Amino acid sequence: MTVDTSKEVKEQGWRARLHEIIFEADTFAGKLFDISLMCAIVLSIITVMLDSVDDIAAKHGTTLNVLEWVFTAFFTLEYIARIVVLRRPAKYIFSFFGIIDLLSVVPTYIGLFVPATQYSVALRTLRLLRVFRVLKLARYLGEARILAQALKASRAKITVFLVAVLSIAIIMGTLMYIIEAEKNGDEFTSIPRSIYWAIVTMTTVGFGDIKPITELGQFVASILMIMGYGVIAVPTGIVGAELSRTKVSTNTRACESCGGEGHDDDAEHCKYCGETL
Amino acid sequence: MTVDTSKEVKEQGWRARLHEIIFEADTFAGKLFDISLMCAIVLSIITVMLDSVDDIAAKHGTTLNVLEWVFTAFFTLEYIARIVVLRRPAKYIFSFFGIIDLLSVVPTYIGLFVPATQYSVALRTLRLLRVFRVLKLARYLGEARILAQALKASRAKITVFLVAVLSIAIIMGTLMYIIEAEKNGDEFTSIPRSIYWAIVTMTTVGFGDIKPITELGQFVASILMIMGYGVIAVPTGIVGAELSRTKVSTNTRACESCGGEGHDDDAEHCKYCGETL
Amino acid sequence: MTVDTSKEVKEQGWRARLHEIIFEADTFAGKLFDISLMCAIVLSIITVMLDSVDDIAAKHGTTLNVLEWVFTAFFTLEYIARIVVLRRPAKYIFSFFGIIDLLSVVPTYIGLFVPATQYSVALRTLRLLRVFRVLKLARYLGEARILAQALKASRAKITVFLVAVLSIAIIMGTLMYIIEAEKNGDEFTSIPRSIYWAIVTMTTVGFGDIKPITELGQFVASILMIMGYGVIAVPTGIVGAELSRTKVSTNTRACESCGGEGHDDDAEHCKYCGETL
Amino acid sequence: MTVDTSKEVKEQGWRARLHEIIFEADTFAGKLFDISLMCAIVLSIITVMLDSVDDIAAKHGTTLNVLEWVFTAFFTLEYIARIVVLRRPAKYIFSFFGIIDLLSVVPTYIGLFVPATQYSVALRTLRLLRVFRVLKLARYLGEARILAQALKASRAKITVFLVAVLSIAIIMGTLMYIIEAEKNGDEFTSIPRSIYWAIVTMTTVGFGDIKPITELGQFVASILMIMGYGVIAVPTGIVGAELSRTKVSTNTRACESCGGEGHDDDAEHCKYCGETL
Repeated sequence: MTVDTSKEVKEQGWRARLHEIIFEADTFAGKLFDISLMCAIVLSIITVMLDSVDDIAAKHGTTLNVLEWVFTAFFTLEYIARIVVLRRPAKYIFSFFGIIDLLSVVPTYIGLFVPATQYSVALRTLRLLRVFRVLKLARYLGEARILAQALKASRAKITVFLVAVLSIAIIMGTLMYIIEAEKNGDEFTSIPRSIYWAIVTMTTVGFGDIKPITELGQFVASILMIMGYGVIAVPTGIVGAELSRTKVSTNTRACESCGGEGHDDDAEHCKYCGETL
Repeated sequence: MTVDTSKEVKEQGWRARLHEIIFEADTFAGKLFDISLMCAIVLSIITVMLDSVDDIAAKHGTTLNVLEWVFTAFFTLEYIARIVVLRRPAKYIFSFFGIIDLLSVVPTYIGLFVPATQYSVALRTLRLLRVFRVLKLARYLGEARILAQALKASRAKITVFLVAVLSIAIIMGTLMYIIEAEKNGDEFTSIPRSIYWAIVTMTTVGFGDIKPITELGQFVASILMIMGYGVIAVPTGIVGAELSRTKVSTNTRACESCGGEGHDDDAEHCKYCGETL
Repeated sequence: MTVDTSKEVKEQGWRARLHEIIFEADTFAGKLFDISLMCAIVLSIITVMLDSVDDIAAKHGTTLNVLEWVFTAFFTLEYIARIVVLRRPAKYIFSFFGIIDLLSVVPTYIGLFVPATQYSVALRTLRLLRVFRVLKLARYLGEARILAQALKASRAKITVFLVAVLSIAIIMGTLMYIIEAEKNGDEFTSIPRSIYWAIVTMTTVGFGDIKPITELGQFVASILMIMGYGVIAVPTGIVGAELSRTKVSTNTRACESCGGEGHDDDAEHCKYCGETL
Repeated sequence: MTVDTSKEVKEQGWRARLHEIIFEADTFAGKLFDISLMCAIVLSIITVMLDSVDDIAAKHGTTLNVLEWVFTAFFTLEYIARIVVLRRPAKYIFSFFGIIDLLSVVPTYIGLFVPATQYSVALRTLRLLRVFRVLKLARYLGEARILAQALKASRAKITVFLVAVLSIAIIMGTLMYIIEAEKNGDEFTSIPRSIYWAIVTMTTVGFGDIKPITELGQFVASILMIMGYGVIAVPTGIVGAELSRTKVSTNTRACESCGGEGHDDDAEHCKYCGETL
């Protein structure tokens, strides 16, 4: 894809070279850039995490702060480099990765303009959102596309599944509220909370902070659990069927006549033009 | 299905128009009606839910009450419109959706005839059942039919699976009662409760309100857990096999020349003999 | 199977008639017998269960006792009838169902010879084992054979899976004991208990009675959880593959020449003798 | 593999005989050796486990100690025998099983040189690592290779899956920290701990030691649970597809006449042209 582009750009000297480093992974410099970026992403997320642990923040606060600025500088340079190098930067700026790249650096800069004494909740929240840098990694997950495709193809069925799960949770949660509210009013305090319990139970998470204590409640809960236990077969079946379907296209035979691909393993004739394969 | 019916009815003027709005989704008015109905269903369920939260009920009780009447009026009109428009309303009234539509409005009206001072448990329960309105949404889940079909086709196997799960739960629950009752009598108080624990454990929910404390009990529990962990493969396999089977059979085109079946949706020629399909 | 047997037996009068009732489900009497037996099994298990609930045992103890004797009498008659009717009763007596049928009635009779004052733990345990009557239901699960076959066919892989799960549990449990024992000695008291925790965690049950509190412990636990979360794919894949393979044999085409079955859907020639199908 | 080697070695007398015993499973002595080794592994692990239970260690400490030395002696002899018998022992010594075999005996010997009074944590840890002996069992799991192969083939997809799960856990954990930290500061103390909670929840383990208490927190948790509940379909689909693929490719016979492949293991004739295979 980027091959042709890079060839044309090559004459422009440093811009071409930078393009190669950032967008190609074949050269040594390109590989080095990719690996440095990945490391920087992982390390910067660890920095954000450690900063939230009181003990570590108290002892190594300054070190973490310095590191944070190093990573922000690196990501800022990367962001600028990407814009400079591309011929149509607007397309990148408003793309998914463009927005993620921008969001990775903005919070740190905003922190400069707000005095430390006014360390408000909003600012702290903003700073923590730097954790979204993890999404920058998505760039390196080539295989993710097959999964994303399988999920996209079964979108309609997944919606049905989610609506069904939520409907069961709403109905069973309300039922449990009716059954348990009187004797177990501390745990099943309202319908939304009972629905939360139904989701916790149906997905087999089972925290145990809310649980039925009446006989009838435990009976209904048992039904919900077995339901949830069985219903998980549905998304598994959907995605599995979809994945094995996308897998079928790994048969790379192309028709010599029409070039059509995606033939079954046992096909003897092209399914598009009828030519013998 | 409803196409022929609607054509004949068209001459009757407003009834035909109403029919089109309610049963067809192609016209602008029809789409608007569908979307309004969906929104009304979702919002009315949220109203019922919020009404059960003490804080919100105390502050916004009147608003919620007014909203409730608005939704009830809307659903009543919808119910009447459906009956008026259809040529054989009896079929609708006694159908699944007819009953759901009726149950969506009846509880609110019953509330009128019972004085608020006698706000009994039965009435409150009845009011909460309005949450079943969520089932009205089923009308819009076209894809649900494939899932329902797959479940129906594997009905016999699912029954076997359920009986097996229940049998294991009964046997393991009783075993655990025998093992734990003496030392852990507060948690394993009776066989039904021990069976409830076995279901909670086997479905991997694990609330933690009941748990084995003796060594033997923990050993038997481990066996049950690994069983439950492995047994989930069974419904997954069943539904998965069924789903991939229904998927294949969705294309029923047979080659006119050789009678070969199982062609892909995009096939133009028979993959066995090369004849144009 | 039993058709030929019953034909020969028919001349013997009442024995033949009894055989038909017990072993055939085609006649009215046969169906009635099957349904009565199923009901008796379910009801007698409920009786055993209720008997273990202190409140109910205190109030309705006599009723439950009478019911228990009614069911025992019924199952005893059934057991005798089966022996009398069959030409080779020894085969039945030592078969799986023969032993289950005997175990269903023996505990109640033993209770007669032990004075109530000596109501020992052993006797109570014996009485509770009547719950195994649930296994009598297996007779009516025809579809169970496909599942049992799929499980049997993947026996070797399931063993590997179980050994793998246990090995991971042993290694991770010991690791957690090393990590947690010092700071969390109340919960991770010994290696067996830590292994129990590892199984509870890996199977995603998660009771929460034992849980890591150190940072390293929580890190290792996270790895174990993600492992368990992913590893469940293995039995699912195994059984799924096996089920879809046994399903393939639903193609009931038999070769007219050699009678071979189990041909693929797209087979044009018998895979055993080469004859055109 | 080892057949040719053993033939050449046979002339050397006792070494050949020993080789046969250790590496072949066809002779009686070879089978006896395999079974003894398996029993010794299982029993020695049980010894290590029991040694960690305070009650048992106090009562039977000496017995366990003696048993431990018996197993260590046996494994040492086995290790020496393997080295002596092989013509290229270096290859074995640095192989996976060579290292495991060495690690199985070393800790016990080190214990000799450290005085019992200095029973440090490091030594105790070392002693507990004897539990890794369980890995010696891997030698006997022939079927494991198919599973390992399926896992290896889907390595890339599994990496994507793990990165995705971790990314969701990091983002949702941070979100929950932002939401819950103020009101539920005892449980959601830091981001790493919140991420731990997210993993516990997403994998449906749900210990219940950390759980959301705010409405918004419970809402976000519900989304995470349903996500985790659905996402499990992905590894299941991946491994399932891989397993059914490796299954198909296990028969590589091609028809000599038409070249058709994909024949069943029991096929004697090509299913496409009917030629004898």
